[in-house]
Amino acid sequence: MSIKVKIINDPVYGFIRFPERELMQIINHPWFQRLRRIKQMGMADLVYPGAVHTRFAHSLGACHLAGKAMDELRAKGIATNNDEYLATRMAALLHDVGHGPFSHSLEKTLVGGVSHEILSGMIMQRMNEEMGGILGKAIQVFDRSYPARYLHQLVSSQMDVDRMDYLNRDSFYTGVSEGVIGYDRILQMLTVSNNELLVEEKGVHSVEKFIIARRLMYWQVYLHKTVLGTELLLVNILKRAKELTLDGMTLFATPALSYFLQRNLTIDDFMENPMHLDTFCALDDTDVMSSIKVWTNSGDRILSELCKMLILRNLYKVSFRSDSLASILIEKRDMIRKRLRIEEKDAHYFVFEGEATNSTYNINDELIKIETKNGIIKNITEIEDSLVNHTLAKAVHKNYICYMQ
Amino acid sequence: MSIKVKIINDPVYGFIRFPERELMQIINHPWFQRLRRIKQMGMADLVYPGAVHTRFAHSLGACHLAGKAMDELRAKGIATNNDEYLATRMAALLHDVGHGPFSHSLEKTLVGGVSHEILSGMIMQRMNEEMGGILGKAIQVFDRSYPARYLHQLVSSQMDVDRMDYLNRDSFYTGVSEGVIGYDRILQMLTVSNNELLVEEKGVHSVEKFIIARRLMYWQVYLHKTVLGTELLLVNILKRAKELTLDGMTLFATPALSYFLQRNLTIDDFMENPMHLDTFCALDDTDVMSSIKVWTNSGDRILSELCKMLILRNLYKVSFRSDSLASILIEKRDMIRKRLRIEEKDAHYFVFEGEATNSTYNINDELIKIETKNGIIKNITEIEDSLVNHTLAKAVHKNYICYMQ
Amino acid sequence: MSIKVKIINDPVYGFIRFPERELMQIINHPWFQRLRRIKQMGMADLVYPGAVHTRFAHSLGACHLAGKAMDELRAKGIATNNDEYLATRMAALLHDVGHGPFSHSLEKTLVGGVSHEILSGMIMQRMNEEMGGILGKAIQVFDRSYPARYLHQLVSSQMDVDRMDYLNRDSFYTGVSEGVIGYDRILQMLTVSNNELLVEEKGVHSVEKFIIARRLMYWQVYLHKTVLGTELLLVNILKRAKELTLDGMTLFATPALSYFLQRNLTIDDFMENPMHLDTFCALDDTDVMSSIKVWTNSGDRILSELCKMLILRNLYKVSFRSDSLASILIEKRDMIRKRLRIEEKDAHYFVFEGEATNSTYNINDELIKIETKNGIIKNITEIEDSLVNHTLAKAVHKNYICYMQ
Amino acid sequence: MSIKVKIINDPVYGFIRFPERELMQIINHPWFQRLRRIKQMGMADLVYPGAVHTRFAHSLGACHLAGKAMDELRAKGIATNNDEYLATRMAALLHDVGHGPFSHSLEKTLVGGVSHEILSGMIMQRMNEEMGGILGKAIQVFDRSYPARYLHQLVSSQMDVDRMDYLNRDSFYTGVSEGVIGYDRILQMLTVSNNELLVEEKGVHSVEKFIIARRLMYWQVYLHKTVLGTELLLVNILKRAKELTLDGMTLFATPALSYFLQRNLTIDDFMENPMHLDTFCALDDTDVMSSIKVWTNSGDRILSELCKMLILRNLYKVSFRSDSLASILIEKRDMIRKRLRIEEKDAHYFVFEGEATNSTYNINDELIKIETKNGIIKNITEIEDSLVNHTLAKAVHKNYICYMQ
Repeated sequence: MSIKVKIINDPVYGFIRFPERELMQIINHPWFQRLRRIKQMGMADLVYPGAVHTRFAHSLGACHLAGKAMDELRAKGIATNNDEYLATRMAALLHDVGHGPFSHSLEKTLVGGVSHEILSGMIMQRMNEEMGGILGKAIQVFDRSYPARYLHQLVSSQMDVDRMDYLNRDSFYTGVSEGVIGYDRILQMLTVSNNELLVEEKGVHSVEKFIIARRLMYWQVYLHKTVLGTELLLVNILKRAKELTLDGMTLFATPALSYFLQRNLTIDDFMENPMHLDTFCALDDTDVMSSIKVWTNSGDRILSELCKMLILRNLYKVSFRSDSLASILIEKRDMIRKRLRIEEKDAHYFVFEGEATNSTYNINDELIKIETKNGIIKNITEIEDSLVNHTLAKAVHKNYICYMQ
Repeated sequence: MSIKVKIINDPVYGFIRFPERELMQIINHPWFQRLRRIKQMGMADLVYPGAVHTRFAHSLGACHLAGKAMDELRAKGIATNNDEYLATRMAALLHDVGHGPFSHSLEKTLVGGVSHEILSGMIMQRMNEEMGGILGKAIQVFDRSYPARYLHQLVSSQMDVDRMDYLNRDSFYTGVSEGVIGYDRILQMLTVSNNELLVEEKGVHSVEKFIIARRLMYWQVYLHKTVLGTELLLVNILKRAKELTLDGMTLFATPALSYFLQRNLTIDDFMENPMHLDTFCALDDTDVMSSIKVWTNSGDRILSELCKMLILRNLYKVSFRSDSLASILIEKRDMIRKRLRIEEKDAHYFVFEGEATNSTYNINDELIKIETKNGIIKNITEIEDSLVNHTLAKAVHKNYICYMQ
Repeated sequence: MSIKVKIINDPVYGFIRFPERELMQIINHPWFQRLRRIKQMGMADLVYPGAVHTRFAHSLGACHLAGKAMDELRAKGIATNNDEYLATRMAALLHDVGHGPFSHSLEKTLVGGVSHEILSGMIMQRMNEEMGGILGKAIQVFDRSYPARYLHQLVSSQMDVDRMDYLNRDSFYTGVSEGVIGYDRILQMLTVSNNELLVEEKGVHSVEKFIIARRLMYWQVYLHKTVLGTELLLVNILKRAKELTLDGMTLFATPALSYFLQRNLTIDDFMENPMHLDTFCALDDTDVMSSIKVWTNSGDRILSELCKMLILRNLYKVSFRSDSLASILIEKRDMIRKRLRIEEKDAHYFVFEGEATNSTYNINDELIKIETKNGIIKNITEIEDSLVNHTLAKAVHKNYICYMQ
Repeated sequence: MSIKVKIINDPVYGFIRFPERELMQIINHPWFQRLRRIKQMGMADLVYPGAVHTRFAHSLGACHLAGKAMDELRAKGIATNNDEYLATRMAALLHDVGHGPFSHSLEKTLVGGVSHEILSGMIMQRMNEEMGGILGKAIQVFDRSYPARYLHQLVSSQMDVDRMDYLNRDSFYTGVSEGVIGYDRILQMLTVSNNELLVEEKGVHSVEKFIIARRLMYWQVYLHKTVLGTELLLVNILKRAKELTLDGMTLFATPALSYFLQRNLTIDDFMENPMHLDTFCALDDTDVMSSIKVWTNSGDRILSELCKMLILRNLYKVSFRSDSLASILIEKRDMIRKRLRIEEKDAHYFVFEGEATNSTYNINDELIKIETKNGIIKNITEIEDSLVNHTLAKAVHKNYICYMQ
């Protein structure tokens, strides 16, 4: 396999470099290359047509930012040694490797609730065995067993290179310029004390801006009503296809997708039988979409109707409501049952309710800590005049009703 | 079907508007929506990972620029009436609707050399019938039968909205900033005389820059050695799959792809049997990629080898050579025959030669014409001190040898 | 005078158009042209070297955005007639015409506290007389006497085209990308009800982002310690120069600057004697800087010392303190008195204290109002889950001590 | 003097770093700080209002690119030692330090044809003496006496960091996006062989693009008719003011400008009397503009007329003509003589002819050399299919007539 590509032209950052041989080995691994065929934002391009960028590009970007962050820390005298530097870059590169196609929808249906974080961990383990142990330290950084905790925080916390890259990249590709963050300034403000990642006090406004940008991206993009409706549609399609398959119906599907339609797997199954992970790592967006296109002609009217809705972009309508939804639900269900001539027990495929939730800042997660000019360390919510106070730390819940139009 | 989306957030131009009901009707048509699943640059994202944008976004962009161009002309008193305005926007929107997945590779193999321009024309005809004739004038603009010739030139010439959009968009998504063109200035410099599209003399340098940017994009991106090699690999995969299918072997394939693997169709076939076009319009990138992934395990060693090369990104090496290639070809073929243990007659799948060609400015195509300050109309090559002289008007040919590494 | 330039190339927005003859007449007026020689951000380029853009460019930008905003409103059926359209563009163009050089410093010293808003109003009156009354309606929009209040709000409120342009422009030129706002989305979300400018509810997050961006620009740029220190230095230079002049000392100065060094003018003086305004309109940055350069060699040691500090960029140090400053002040003053061998009464030129204040959202100013989906109008602080709550509506005060280094 | 600023926020490149203490010492020197008050593009902001950036920012940018270029070369194993690295950065920083205000106009009038390159050299010598010899090697790099020639070529050749920065920066600030160059790619393509700066063959298209961008900027911006006319107006103003001063008339002027109005200095004068250089280094845009404003009221009608033209932006009209200009010149002169009631001998101030010249690629200057894949070194004009052939290497001359409107 060719291990030559070292400079990659990234539209977000310009030329980015991967001088480390080990990183190129990982990038060239088929399990990583598969991320080229998995869109970062799933179905969001139905609303933002530019947003077709891949998890591959995001992973390279996170790895690039991890290097930049450590360069800044080194310039301040924080001694990250070369092994740690490489391990952290690896962990950033692989942090999302466990994502499947349309991850949010798929996790809930095909892989029985096994989360992509767990799958990332398993995949890293397998790659490590295959590659003679070069990933050992990266796995420690990833699973927070490595002593220098700030390295894990760089890769995974409330202000990590993952979020910095995806906010920037998603803004760039959606055209929602308001999500752009000043990542270079944030990186410059990072520091470390007592093995903990901190932000210098003069960077507080940049952190606030970062959090607000993320909040905006959530409500304007990730939880945009149509985006949300599309994800829910996909969940229902896969749920129905699996239901039918387990009931004995034969559906066209690519081999990898077929495998997961026929099985209800738990995390223990994944651990016992490596074949499950192998097949998972063969799955990407093209399996799902090419099969759904065929299902538009399925004999099962529910499945074919749902698939046509997706392909013809005749999507669910989602409506956020604060008041009781019961009566509307009943009314819409009746209407749709009659229109589609389906049974009451199947109406939930076309009319249902749910809840969308987002925490702008989560006080139960890795906290963002600030080092004041006097060297005191505070949680960002404790900074005087800080925006990130209890209002923002409270999760926002929105009830919705979702129905075929 | 919902016909509501009127403002689209495009990362290249910002918000773009589609106030015309008829345009939204076309955009929402399944044959147009299918362009969402066809990448504009085919396999080029193997080299430029950001370049995963779709023909859908490009078509919207071209339509947007067509409107902007006509707005400029109207501001100069060139009377484009509302019907012409709409028809030209439609023609720009649909100019690429006949592209299949990985068009350059597919045309040569699956659809028997029927060009995407011809397919675009057929599809527009069919949509016109379906939509009650609203596309009549757009078809005339597209096939140059409409009297006001400048409208066709806006949509299809050597400085049309198609090229303006794709140069801009491809630059944006590849990160090759050198391809960026000053499209807004070019649009401002357009004028019309005697029904012919012209550029005002003070816009000559912008036109030159546009042509040079295109030349650069050709050699740096579209004909980049690895991009070229990947397209050739795809051609060979599809050729082999078709060969095997026609020989009676059963290959996994999605239904739409299967249809074209089993048939050698001519343009006459497409005209006689509408089923062919219907099936063509069900085909997209996901059919091709999901099938190729399965073929990596094919019983045919040639097919599986070629597919593995693509999926594992172990691509052909392409080398441009001015000298004779005969001896190298023989040497490489021998080597690969032995390595793969294949017959001489199959070696051409792994080692072959070819020619890449590009004309920076083609004097046999619609010419770019300049209106001088004195109102005289000249071909751009006749402008004093112009860059676009005979050197640039000469096609550049480069021989290459292409082989498995 | 030539009134031909109609399209201006603005690095922030691209080509911007001024098709209205009356606007070009204003732009070409010497009192408007003078804004070319007045930097928008005063001395801030000592910290952000790119930020040398002028009030001229800002005024054009605000006028451009005013037009865009009214275009959006018209597209929604809000009937702004052509006279109102032109008047509002004029008001936006002229809203800052009363700024003098280094306005924040100058107002406090040279023009006796007459604010730039008042001077803008006077200048508009004078131009109106000169131009045969074409500014009548613009003046009404500016001074809020025009019945359609939303026009004034577009030009001057907490989310007006002035702020939108300066946040965007200042971000662009300083390179502080975090100040960038999604002005095009905000413009799209504007609506009018009962003659009042409103934002549609789905635009709430964009408004929040706008307010946060402004907050960030304040603390990171406009009230940046060094920027603040430079402005205070300029205040002291002009104060000293005026003090010496009024005491009878002859200082080199350009005629226009000399005029104001010799006079203590009140608003009544400006109203009675048009000569004052004429001379004010001859004053720009070059008068101030060219004179200060000469003063570095002044016989007055205090003046020459202060001017050298500015020219050699050996600026005041500003330190924000929450605790009592009394003791530090005394200590620093003693030190500097000895070093410069100056009297106690003059020490305040080199060591002093002050307070910087900023309101992110001012509940006493024109409020930002939101129209909910149900047509109810709310103040933005009343929106559920809104960021712009009482925390942000509270002014932030920071005490500082400022001293020669 | 404070030597602390090490990271500068540049809108063109983002954060740029100056970790070297010696560089900060130079940057803080008053002779370098003076570049803050000298606009890079002189009067061009009368046409492109955004283009008010300074020689200060350009010099920092060139220094930044010099570092980036040497970083690339080091990554390729070209051993630039630390002294050379610093010296080259210094030379890039100081390459333009000899520019006066509105340099193109001023050189021809005030400083008797002593070029800014010679003045830069003199200033570097003086600074070197003052700073204890730290500039020794930088001076060698600048005056091409240093053995490693490629360092000089980086700083001064047909593809040096000076041009790269100014093309980028001028594009950015004018908004002429067509001038943008892919500087990062060009830097990546640099290499050195036999102490000579070369471009790798695969970078040929980027070099072409660079040269074409420069050509476009020349004709569209630097030699834009109005820009050219404004420079010629300034030349005439300064010429007239000097003429009057030498004739004994007393004109208001700042002391530094006055000094040069009273003297005709040669290069020998500058070498003999350091006072000349000291005064030159006190001169900036504010001296010229503040004096011209006063001269609008001069008793000399020619001077006041010329100055009013500039301040009121009632500029010369420039018209490029290929045919004989004699008759038009006579006609215009007659007209203007009558209108202004001036003598024939003074008419040349208001009507005259001239020639604008630009070489896209100058074969008599430091050539751009290409290293082919086979290691052969060629002049770029010798590359097959290269754009930069004899057409581009030929200087373009355009005659113009320039007259008061």
